[in-house]
Amino acid sequence: MAPAGRPGAKKGILERLESGEVVIGDGSFLITLEKRGYVKAGLWTPEAVIEHPDAVRQLHMEFLRAGSNVMQTFTFSASEDNMESKWEDVNAAACDLAREVAGKGDALVAGGICQTSIYKYHKDEARIKKLFRQQLEVFAWKNVDFLIAEYFEHVEEAVWAVETLIASGKPVAATMCIGPEGDLHGVPPGECAVRLVKAGASIIGVNCHFDPTISLKTVKLMKEGLEAARLKAHLMSQPLAYHTPDCNKQGFIDLPEFPFGLEPRVATRWDIQKYAREAYNLGVRYIGGCCGFEPYHIRAIAEELAPERGFLPPASEKHGSWGSGLDMHTKPWVRARARKEYWENLRIASGRPYNPSMSKPDGWGVTKGTAELMQQKEATTEQQLKELFEKQKFKSQ
Amino acid sequence: MAPAGRPGAKKGILERLESGEVVIGDGSFLITLEKRGYVKAGLWTPEAVIEHPDAVRQLHMEFLRAGSNVMQTFTFSASEDNMESKWEDVNAAACDLAREVAGKGDALVAGGICQTSIYKYHKDEARIKKLFRQQLEVFAWKNVDFLIAEYFEHVEEAVWAVETLIASGKPVAATMCIGPEGDLHGVPPGECAVRLVKAGASIIGVNCHFDPTISLKTVKLMKEGLEAARLKAHLMSQPLAYHTPDCNKQGFIDLPEFPFGLEPRVATRWDIQKYAREAYNLGVRYIGGCCGFEPYHIRAIAEELAPERGFLPPASEKHGSWGSGLDMHTKPWVRARARKEYWENLRIASGRPYNPSMSKPDGWGVTKGTAELMQQKEATTEQQLKELFEKQKFKSQ
Amino acid sequence: MAPAGRPGAKKGILERLESGEVVIGDGSFLITLEKRGYVKAGLWTPEAVIEHPDAVRQLHMEFLRAGSNVMQTFTFSASEDNMESKWEDVNAAACDLAREVAGKGDALVAGGICQTSIYKYHKDEARIKKLFRQQLEVFAWKNVDFLIAEYFEHVEEAVWAVETLIASGKPVAATMCIGPEGDLHGVPPGECAVRLVKAGASIIGVNCHFDPTISLKTVKLMKEGLEAARLKAHLMSQPLAYHTPDCNKQGFIDLPEFPFGLEPRVATRWDIQKYAREAYNLGVRYIGGCCGFEPYHIRAIAEELAPERGFLPPASEKHGSWGSGLDMHTKPWVRARARKEYWENLRIASGRPYNPSMSKPDGWGVTKGTAELMQQKEATTEQQLKELFEKQKFKSQ
Amino acid sequence: MAPAGRPGAKKGILERLESGEVVIGDGSFLITLEKRGYVKAGLWTPEAVIEHPDAVRQLHMEFLRAGSNVMQTFTFSASEDNMESKWEDVNAAACDLAREVAGKGDALVAGGICQTSIYKYHKDEARIKKLFRQQLEVFAWKNVDFLIAEYFEHVEEAVWAVETLIASGKPVAATMCIGPEGDLHGVPPGECAVRLVKAGASIIGVNCHFDPTISLKTVKLMKEGLEAARLKAHLMSQPLAYHTPDCNKQGFIDLPEFPFGLEPRVATRWDIQKYAREAYNLGVRYIGGCCGFEPYHIRAIAEELAPERGFLPPASEKHGSWGSGLDMHTKPWVRARARKEYWENLRIASGRPYNPSMSKPDGWGVTKGTAELMQQKEATTEQQLKELFEKQKFKSQ
Repeated sequence: MAPAGRPGAKKGILERLESGEVVIGDGSFLITLEKRGYVKAGLWTPEAVIEHPDAVRQLHMEFLRAGSNVMQTFTFSASEDNMESKWEDVNAAACDLAREVAGKGDALVAGGICQTSIYKYHKDEARIKKLFRQQLEVFAWKNVDFLIAEYFEHVEEAVWAVETLIASGKPVAATMCIGPEGDLHGVPPGECAVRLVKAGASIIGVNCHFDPTISLKTVKLMKEGLEAARLKAHLMSQPLAYHTPDCNKQGFIDLPEFPFGLEPRVATRWDIQKYAREAYNLGVRYIGGCCGFEPYHIRAIAEELAPERGFLPPASEKHGSWGSGLDMHTKPWVRARARKEYWENLRIASGRPYNPSMSKPDGWGVTKGTAELMQQKEATTEQQLKELFEKQKFKSQ
Repeated sequence: MAPAGRPGAKKGILERLESGEVVIGDGSFLITLEKRGYVKAGLWTPEAVIEHPDAVRQLHMEFLRAGSNVMQTFTFSASEDNMESKWEDVNAAACDLAREVAGKGDALVAGGICQTSIYKYHKDEARIKKLFRQQLEVFAWKNVDFLIAEYFEHVEEAVWAVETLIASGKPVAATMCIGPEGDLHGVPPGECAVRLVKAGASIIGVNCHFDPTISLKTVKLMKEGLEAARLKAHLMSQPLAYHTPDCNKQGFIDLPEFPFGLEPRVATRWDIQKYAREAYNLGVRYIGGCCGFEPYHIRAIAEELAPERGFLPPASEKHGSWGSGLDMHTKPWVRARARKEYWENLRIASGRPYNPSMSKPDGWGVTKGTAELMQQKEATTEQQLKELFEKQKFKSQ
Repeated sequence: MAPAGRPGAKKGILERLESGEVVIGDGSFLITLEKRGYVKAGLWTPEAVIEHPDAVRQLHMEFLRAGSNVMQTFTFSASEDNMESKWEDVNAAACDLAREVAGKGDALVAGGICQTSIYKYHKDEARIKKLFRQQLEVFAWKNVDFLIAEYFEHVEEAVWAVETLIASGKPVAATMCIGPEGDLHGVPPGECAVRLVKAGASIIGVNCHFDPTISLKTVKLMKEGLEAARLKAHLMSQPLAYHTPDCNKQGFIDLPEFPFGLEPRVATRWDIQKYAREAYNLGVRYIGGCCGFEPYHIRAIAEELAPERGFLPPASEKHGSWGSGLDMHTKPWVRARARKEYWENLRIASGRPYNPSMSKPDGWGVTKGTAELMQQKEATTEQQLKELFEKQKFKSQ
Repeated sequence: MAPAGRPGAKKGILERLESGEVVIGDGSFLITLEKRGYVKAGLWTPEAVIEHPDAVRQLHMEFLRAGSNVMQTFTFSASEDNMESKWEDVNAAACDLAREVAGKGDALVAGGICQTSIYKYHKDEARIKKLFRQQLEVFAWKNVDFLIAEYFEHVEEAVWAVETLIASGKPVAATMCIGPEGDLHGVPPGECAVRLVKAGASIIGVNCHFDPTISLKTVKLMKEGLEAARLKAHLMSQPLAYHTPDCNKQGFIDLPEFPFGLEPRVATRWDIQKYAREAYNLGVRYIGGCCGFEPYHIRAIAEELAPERGFLPPASEKHGSWGSGLDMHTKPWVRARARKEYWENLRIASGRPYNPSMSKPDGWGVTKGTAELMQQKEATTEQQLKELFEKQKFKSQ
């Protein structure tokens, strides 16, 4: 095993993908650590890296143990526009944590950046690229193994990110949080993929905002776009672990249940095994997850693809494939659940007979530039909230 | 703050309850650590305590931070009948871990024992009490603050546990995993409560097997039973964080979704706030959770009862009550969710339109003494499994 | 076939039941004719008998054709307390219509009375028996074949009805609209059955208010009550064709969907075949339906029990058992539905993904004697409605 | 009122539509009479017209009373290819029945033809047009008021129908059973509309196969197609009364619940009022229904549009708008339902907690020309059915 601090000793991300290996990504940090008590919903910033490093380290460890080959630095939205001066310390510490844990297994460190909060008001290429460059400097200093530009709703901004990151000479992956309808300006997935590859990304795909099924539809459109343009890139998918059949093009944030009522939408490990198989069949080789992906979901990817990869992850010592561990249970009807056929065909119940199965997404037709959509520096006032409640009441009728 | 190892420096469990304080229990260990990769479903034993102490310590820390006043030793089913000689090391290490974390906040250490695997075949009082006494010896050596006998399906065995534990001179709490229909021999909850108190328990109630609503119904029946018998005890509830409107008297283990398809049943934080309030109104003052209770569920108890207690838990620094942190969100319709009325009235969707809301529990009428119900030493054979599958197929028609 | 007007020429109701024959009742008149445009919801009175006799005759014809052996006079709630003087003409005409259609097949005419609107305010035995006697006089004059006292929520009033009807010398059947919890004064089903038989009823059972499954549970309790008391009577069931798993003891009227949103609860023909079989197995030999039972539901009873009875109803010429008629369909996947296994195992979808599966019944704790429960002579005023709406709003929180 | 046989005395269909009147169509015959016992599912032919004219007349009467301005002859699929020689008698008798009832109110008689069973195997224009012409001859002889070509899945065949019918000189309406994705050859709705109008149809729109919401989407696309082509026609919609959010482009026949498990999908009267309003707002002036539309659904259209039309239908004497009749109910919580706000906002429950809300449509990829899709002359054999079941089993995995 390569010692920590000497990343070069491991096979790089492109080397792996080019040889046909499956690379397993990691899972959810913000949402998972919110539930563990270390991240604040609404802000969604990663200050836990410096405030509670043990909690962050433990989550990295769980993903490593579950089979992840990538430790993404916990730097989501940690840039000057969101966290002021604190962001730099957070990012440096996040790199160290990721490197420390990666060193304990066969994992690479990926430095991650995401869309800015200012793009939708000021499409100021220079200013936005400067934000990206600042983050890149930390990643270069800490010598991460590769870079990920993720969670972009607009391909234009994603292209700026890629253009900035390739200056480092490190491999660049780029994923957008879009569905089959394309980016929020209406650019279809196939076209998004083409632009990202032309900008220099070696790996492209989607992350967040939609469930595995919808996300793979989007990746398929991206793949077809590349083929039509005779371009090549590795494919990557990191979807939600939430079922979102009822989302519109803006994804799960507009669901009335976001972010504190998503529980009944969480995918089972069997849903994720199905996802892993379908992703693999589609040709995706970088397979991971985003919000809602707990360690056991990542393990499910590793278990589903164990025949192709030839090994199981460490955490499988505590898991029998397809429920086989249940054959030790006392009750015979629980023992009878110790098989693939049972879990694959079970239509699981919600236990919520007074609740519906689908929701109507919010999204009130407020458009780009509308005052209500401006990022605020301070908490919404009582008066502003009252106005919003009235508007919501009206919209839901 | 009292130093670890000198538990007496903190107010004891009875002192707290007698002064009317709310004591917040902790949450789920087996199920939560299974998802994190450290516990094997089917066996459900706590060897993680010695194999991966960091993972166990971190979970204790999260509950402490969420507001728990009790660190239960992670010793569930760790006794000679389930773990052979290893159990003793596990239990000693579990006590040390619990004490270490309890020392970082206002929490007590509770040593926990549960029903044996042999009661249903051999109602051998002497042999069973010996198993309990062995565990008690470790707790006495490690000087835990009080004792909990939990997860009993039969009041007779629970009484034996209480009778054994009180010999230590420490306060004893006793909870049964029963619903309003009573124990598996048909003893009603009120009668169970009476017997437990007469045996010496100072705190009685329910844990596991049923959702908060059903569990509080059971506690209410216990309370009424005590009142009718003119007995007094403190009330305790540690229910599932899963909705179980469809369970029969044997609880959630018989649900077809147990244990790998329970996701859509997970309670939201708002469900738990409702539970905390109802428990409080019923007079329950030891309020915690069992399987499925994550740190954010425990925090929800602490937040709901903050007006009565006068303070919030540490983890609330990362949580705005009733979603108030969302007032910083970019999208106005998400900001409009930053209030109690929204979350209290939302009927959350499952995102699973092809699934039902309720399940028919398994349980094939196999009865006490049936060979199929015997605890096995070895994994079920292929042939045995095949017979079970056939039986299951037949039963579900 | 016996000529109309000479009922004696057919085998009487008791003769049939005593010889072990299955007697198939009829179905829904008020609810079915409301949907066809001839009955007003809220009033629920049968003036259609004189206003639109063709519509009523046609519905009788459909039930006869579907296999009904009983034409109940369409006289539900047609008594002095509800319809003033008009009731007498309605009842006489209803008898003539029932007789006319019964004469076209193997059906008897049953005169029906139901609970009064005054019992819950004035338990005036003399006055109530007088109302029953007035109705009986018309039935005696029109020489119906037997009598049914149905839709009683209180066994005391049902007993008064039976005591009045047996004076005619005709066989008397008595059904209550209760569930397993018993009558609205808390008298359990077994005790209700005993009192009705002691009062002189030859046939007893339940009608309306609950679905087939729940209704058969109630009949089972009645049967056990009779057995315990060493009494004998024929059993009868005429449940709703609506699924009511969520009802409390007052039945479907308290469901928020009553009466204009019950559509998704309607039983399929396959649900009714299951009901017919279970009723038969329980020993019920008078098997029919109440609100929601359309002609095809009655046909389903006749088809399920065709092996026992030895013949199919006339309407089966237009129906293939278990969907066999579909074998002529163009699409192969529809042809593949032409079999029992398909329909028996299909979990039919509601097509309503934004709706729940269960409702919380209304019922605001207003009790007997409360002014709000008084039968009104005039339509509720605007002011009264406004007060009710406020109350409803408050209750549903 | 104009005497029967002199249709010219009433305002014609085009006269009405051109003056802006709302014309209310009728509802379901095949499905409704199947439930009443007079039509056989699978065959779906209207022999009841001669076998049981009273039953057909009564249904016409109910629609007239509910507000229908059109009595469609009950001649669906009554042509030589489906019914051999019998079809001619059926069609003549159907015209007489429709005329008889139309004469009792303000309704016109429309002669209806639909797609042939042979088009999908032999696109033989001459042979198909001959079938249409044969049917037209009866309608001409019986002097219907106008003609409807309905239930076409392919616009090419619909155009042939229109071209045949306009030879009569009578106004021609044409509706296709398609959704927003267009006809089964992929012709979009807008293009279908253009071709139908160019072929001579004065009224165009959709019927059957999809629910009101989806059907109005299709009509909107038709309207936009006509506008783009600068063509004019009156718009017509006669959708299902079943919710079909889960259908693919082939409509409700492919749902696993078709035709014997559609109960929980039936629209309420309130759903239909919403539909009537939306149809009206879209500019549709011929508003009716197809399969599943019972008389009370048609009445709901008439009631919703009463403000525009200035009058209520006869059957409204037995209905209080928006449940107002309930203000006479005994229970105060039922009286509280006597208002629009209540019914408009109620999310009605299905009472089926073990069932899903959506289904996956069948449709096995068998294509045009596949032997399995051929219309059969005789019932499917046991062997054929067995093969189909195996195929179905395989497909549903």
